[in-house]
Amino acid sequence: MMEIPKTMKAAVLHKPEHLTLEEVPVPEIGDDEVLIEVKACGICGSDVLALHGGHPRATYPRILGHEFSGVVCKVGKDVKKLTVGMRVTSTMEIQCGRCWACRHGHLNHCQSGRSIGLSADGGMAQFMKAPSRNVLVLPDKIDFEVGAIAETLAVGYNAIRLKARAGAGDIVVILGAGPVGMDVLACAKAAGTYVVISDVMKNRLEIARRMGADRAVFTMEENLAEVVKEVTEGRGADVVVETVGSTAARTVYQAVELTRPRGTIIIMGTNAENRADFPVTTFKEKEMTMIGSRGIPFDALERALMLLGQERIDLRPVITHRFPLEQIHEAMRVAEHEKDKALKVMIKPLAA
Amino acid sequence: MMEIPKTMKAAVLHKPEHLTLEEVPVPEIGDDEVLIEVKACGICGSDVLALHGGHPRATYPRILGHEFSGVVCKVGKDVKKLTVGMRVTSTMEIQCGRCWACRHGHLNHCQSGRSIGLSADGGMAQFMKAPSRNVLVLPDKIDFEVGAIAETLAVGYNAIRLKARAGAGDIVVILGAGPVGMDVLACAKAAGTYVVISDVMKNRLEIARRMGADRAVFTMEENLAEVVKEVTEGRGADVVVETVGSTAARTVYQAVELTRPRGTIIIMGTNAENRADFPVTTFKEKEMTMIGSRGIPFDALERALMLLGQERIDLRPVITHRFPLEQIHEAMRVAEHEKDKALKVMIKPLAA
Amino acid sequence: MMEIPKTMKAAVLHKPEHLTLEEVPVPEIGDDEVLIEVKACGICGSDVLALHGGHPRATYPRILGHEFSGVVCKVGKDVKKLTVGMRVTSTMEIQCGRCWACRHGHLNHCQSGRSIGLSADGGMAQFMKAPSRNVLVLPDKIDFEVGAIAETLAVGYNAIRLKARAGAGDIVVILGAGPVGMDVLACAKAAGTYVVISDVMKNRLEIARRMGADRAVFTMEENLAEVVKEVTEGRGADVVVETVGSTAARTVYQAVELTRPRGTIIIMGTNAENRADFPVTTFKEKEMTMIGSRGIPFDALERALMLLGQERIDLRPVITHRFPLEQIHEAMRVAEHEKDKALKVMIKPLAA
Amino acid sequence: MMEIPKTMKAAVLHKPEHLTLEEVPVPEIGDDEVLIEVKACGICGSDVLALHGGHPRATYPRILGHEFSGVVCKVGKDVKKLTVGMRVTSTMEIQCGRCWACRHGHLNHCQSGRSIGLSADGGMAQFMKAPSRNVLVLPDKIDFEVGAIAETLAVGYNAIRLKARAGAGDIVVILGAGPVGMDVLACAKAAGTYVVISDVMKNRLEIARRMGADRAVFTMEENLAEVVKEVTEGRGADVVVETVGSTAARTVYQAVELTRPRGTIIIMGTNAENRADFPVTTFKEKEMTMIGSRGIPFDALERALMLLGQERIDLRPVITHRFPLEQIHEAMRVAEHEKDKALKVMIKPLAA
Repeated sequence: MMEIPKTMKAAVLHKPEHLTLEEVPVPEIGDDEVLIEVKACGICGSDVLALHGGHPRATYPRILGHEFSGVVCKVGKDVKKLTVGMRVTSTMEIQCGRCWACRHGHLNHCQSGRSIGLSADGGMAQFMKAPSRNVLVLPDKIDFEVGAIAETLAVGYNAIRLKARAGAGDIVVILGAGPVGMDVLACAKAAGTYVVISDVMKNRLEIARRMGADRAVFTMEENLAEVVKEVTEGRGADVVVETVGSTAARTVYQAVELTRPRGTIIIMGTNAENRADFPVTTFKEKEMTMIGSRGIPFDALERALMLLGQERIDLRPVITHRFPLEQIHEAMRVAEHEKDKALKVMIKPLAA
Repeated sequence: MMEIPKTMKAAVLHKPEHLTLEEVPVPEIGDDEVLIEVKACGICGSDVLALHGGHPRATYPRILGHEFSGVVCKVGKDVKKLTVGMRVTSTMEIQCGRCWACRHGHLNHCQSGRSIGLSADGGMAQFMKAPSRNVLVLPDKIDFEVGAIAETLAVGYNAIRLKARAGAGDIVVILGAGPVGMDVLACAKAAGTYVVISDVMKNRLEIARRMGADRAVFTMEENLAEVVKEVTEGRGADVVVETVGSTAARTVYQAVELTRPRGTIIIMGTNAENRADFPVTTFKEKEMTMIGSRGIPFDALERALMLLGQERIDLRPVITHRFPLEQIHEAMRVAEHEKDKALKVMIKPLAA
Repeated sequence: MMEIPKTMKAAVLHKPEHLTLEEVPVPEIGDDEVLIEVKACGICGSDVLALHGGHPRATYPRILGHEFSGVVCKVGKDVKKLTVGMRVTSTMEIQCGRCWACRHGHLNHCQSGRSIGLSADGGMAQFMKAPSRNVLVLPDKIDFEVGAIAETLAVGYNAIRLKARAGAGDIVVILGAGPVGMDVLACAKAAGTYVVISDVMKNRLEIARRMGADRAVFTMEENLAEVVKEVTEGRGADVVVETVGSTAARTVYQAVELTRPRGTIIIMGTNAENRADFPVTTFKEKEMTMIGSRGIPFDALERALMLLGQERIDLRPVITHRFPLEQIHEAMRVAEHEKDKALKVMIKPLAA
Repeated sequence: MMEIPKTMKAAVLHKPEHLTLEEVPVPEIGDDEVLIEVKACGICGSDVLALHGGHPRATYPRILGHEFSGVVCKVGKDVKKLTVGMRVTSTMEIQCGRCWACRHGHLNHCQSGRSIGLSADGGMAQFMKAPSRNVLVLPDKIDFEVGAIAETLAVGYNAIRLKARAGAGDIVVILGAGPVGMDVLACAKAAGTYVVISDVMKNRLEIARRMGADRAVFTMEENLAEVVKEVTEGRGADVVVETVGSTAARTVYQAVELTRPRGTIIIMGTNAENRADFPVTTFKEKEMTMIGSRGIPFDALERALMLLGQERIDLRPVITHRFPLEQIHEAMRVAEHEKDKALKVMIKPLAA
């Protein structure tokens, strides 16, 4: 069993725009918590948002990072089943257990809990802690990097399987081939659906093709509506997943137009204005169903890990960059500004 | 058995704005059709739309009227179970039986069929015909007027029971107390829900109260959001039904705002622009479900008639005006222009 | 604020068949618990089972009673929203929060938690404690007796609304008019369904009629299948709820036979042999759905209390007997052996 | 365009046990029908049943065979979209269009229609006819043999996708690796699930492995319950599909025991006694859902063909024997009696 040091390196966001790498105490764990030595941590769009003060749930000072994996190095006295040495990840939401949502089993809707990496310290450090009930063991066949971003896959799993319940025989259209769209794609393909994915960036469509997209539509040159019409013999897609959330691009409007009568639209994209154009008449006449999908039910992470362990999904193509924790500023810059090259940027706290 | 005349009085819409009362031949029936002596026919908003040339499915010349009831006076040779003398109504959509929707059992989505009262002749005449498979027998306890507008109740039934699956223990908000909102109200109350209904017209709210609304909110003076917050202890309504469809009034936006996490929104209102503002971020974060509800599945009319026959719903309060067929022009005028006084306007082909 | 005594009267079941009334310490509460002065406690079939050692989840010694209500007389330091003097009841299952079921939001399926009145002390005493997250406030309009058996109504609510999603327009058949069947009846009527209920005891059917059953069928003399055929025009019931669970009476078999194609069967009755005859061919050919319904999701109790508070359901007809805590043996005897007269037997800990 | 002869060879079942090969007139088609030159026809268990007089829907004399494919060689005057030369198959149920099931869109529950190959003539002949609405075009990539048994795959599709809605991340157990179990397996694997399949015949399990089963359990030597416990970490399968229907083997009972709390059981197996043992207490306590799945909704065949066309499913391993129509008696014998060697036996009407 490893010696746990008193202090550790961590990227601390003291307040918006003030991110510094420093030496801080290793977290103390409670009776029902585990201490995790972090092995990998992905940068999410919400980390970038929090860096600039734009995330509604972020509090400061904060160690960011909710896409992490690592090794259990200490367990609280009430912890069962988890032991030192286990390779793990965890869900990010720490439920209060007492609010309306918790009492009704809508566990990812707790409004009184905290979020690891946003309102509780996260994975951009050498060590972190998590409640045992949030922790899941990594399957043998996946490495720490993939284990860290299993949580992103869970977002796609929630959309495709827990909301849309899509599977073989369905034709799915995904609007947007960014990190979220790519996770939806991975799950949609694992579920045996026929997938059309669209974007305005060619590099992303190239990765989408490698991940199994049946049709990758470059909307600057191709007409997506025509493609959908062709592959569905004119009736529209069974499921359309909107991951863009742009008011200007009218992707919600488009999602409804592309869906068949009584088909399903999944809403994942958002915007700060909280506004989208919506073709209400089409929606009513076709009796469509539209469902919102947010992160991250425990169920979704459990199943995402299962699929990774079964080697039905390979997430490695989405990892385009790796940085040691010491280069956190550069890593954040790349994640934010080099979208033509970067998809998922990983931090390795133990670069050695 | 009655003597069937060769000709009959009918209100014929030769083309938009050209509605004339005239003597026309009584319809010939096919082997699988029945001839109905019309006893009552309601005026629907879509009739007014067709009068002005604004209905996409209307063809001309046409005898309007799809909210009808009457007595079977002749049956085709292949008709089973229906016999002369039966009191009946029918659904308006005549399915083609061969399109994608028909082959998949989405019977109210047939795009190749015809609609009685819009693209096939309807009930604003002394006689009309209908395919036997569309026809349903009226329960003993309801009169012809209520039988005629059972179809409107079916629209509410589709929304409340077949789409939202609402029932006792649910809190339902209905936006709009026009004819559609009122039918939704009737079904929601029959299903034991607690109902908040809102409108900008006091006369409509007064009728809503008589029909059992638990809270009737006059939005020119009361804050609907506050009322919903109060009755739901802050969490939002289980189901919100949007019946207004006004782009300007932002009722779709409001519907999403009023709904609880993982709650359900039903979309019934539409507009010619096919556009509404939609709070995409709220919708996603709360993982809501939104479903379109259009007229009129056979199932819905069957169940609406059952509820009327069980005397669980009394539709008579919504009937505010009655005119003989001879006064069709005045009847249409009242239905279109006197909304502060008129809710449902009925035509009686046999005024005698 | 009341003075809380050190000791209290309680009916302690030391081991099967050894139930004694004695003076025991008033429970100590934890930081997240409340102390409740019990005002009423119903006797459930599972209490009788535990008395005889037949309940799989009961542990000894134990104060039985999970159908209770009372007044909060002390709150732990972490308790929010609940205050001394509030009239309350609670759900019986104390979740562990860490098992597979808890982590997935299947809260009434926790296998590592405890059950108030079976494996934690319950309401057959002057005081009891409960975790704050289990507690719900009684609406003003209901008394303590009805508040105590709201939990039984929740069992019916779970079946009718959370499982079957039944409501106005549905025809529901309930097999068995015992306490469970009666709660299902109450919810089914509140939801606006047409209800046929059957039993072999005339006294129960009489109460069922008073509670609104549309048809109460005495199966010793009437043919239930004929009645269902008549009221459904031959197609079968939309929903059949089986509350008997008797292997010999073949009520599961009968439930399937009475249901329409693609209809729903709810299974509530059980037996110690864990066996029933099942018409597998009929079930498959008609593509039916059958769902098990157990006690008691938090959601169901919340909604049951709402319905009682709205005065849509009157549970008082099911209360046939009342005893002070001192007569606990007689009360248990009546509940077990006088089924021709007794439906719900209530214990009043404070008989004064 | 081919010359259509006046007569054709057909295997006519005059009455139970009286099957003769003879020359009969080529069928006349109606205005909405097509004439199909049969290219391949599979033998189904129901054909064997009908041969011995054990099928409740079979009428005599009859040309059996509902698993067929061929080429359109003539179309009625009202037929749209289908033209001479198209490679096709069709669903077997000819709906009446007027019964309760048809009017409600439960199209595979029509009780007044006819079944091709049972109560209307089928594919064990050189030619056959079908209503145009039943016909579906074969994708380019599949041959006539696979096209003929696409209908069997549709049975599996109905179970896995339309009833269970299973997909990636789910663990599915299939009881029985006969023809039905194999079709379920094919769909379950196409949908990305982890599949455990069990049988008492080793040859079948061997084919199941080739078709992608993750675990193929020979129940004469292995304990299925242990295997399921292991792969699901003790909680039970998400979905169990029962395809055996044996009263003696208690497979329905076993299906319930193998399923997790709130999991889903699909019933496909039947028996002539219409009886199975059912563990009612387990079912209720775990709040399971059990759904019957029968053949063959149009939707299921459409999607099954789509999956075959996408080459996501390869049905060829299940075809073990081929016979010319002239050897119909031997073909039927093999299908019935050589289950240790034969899975799907095909008839080729045009053996040339």
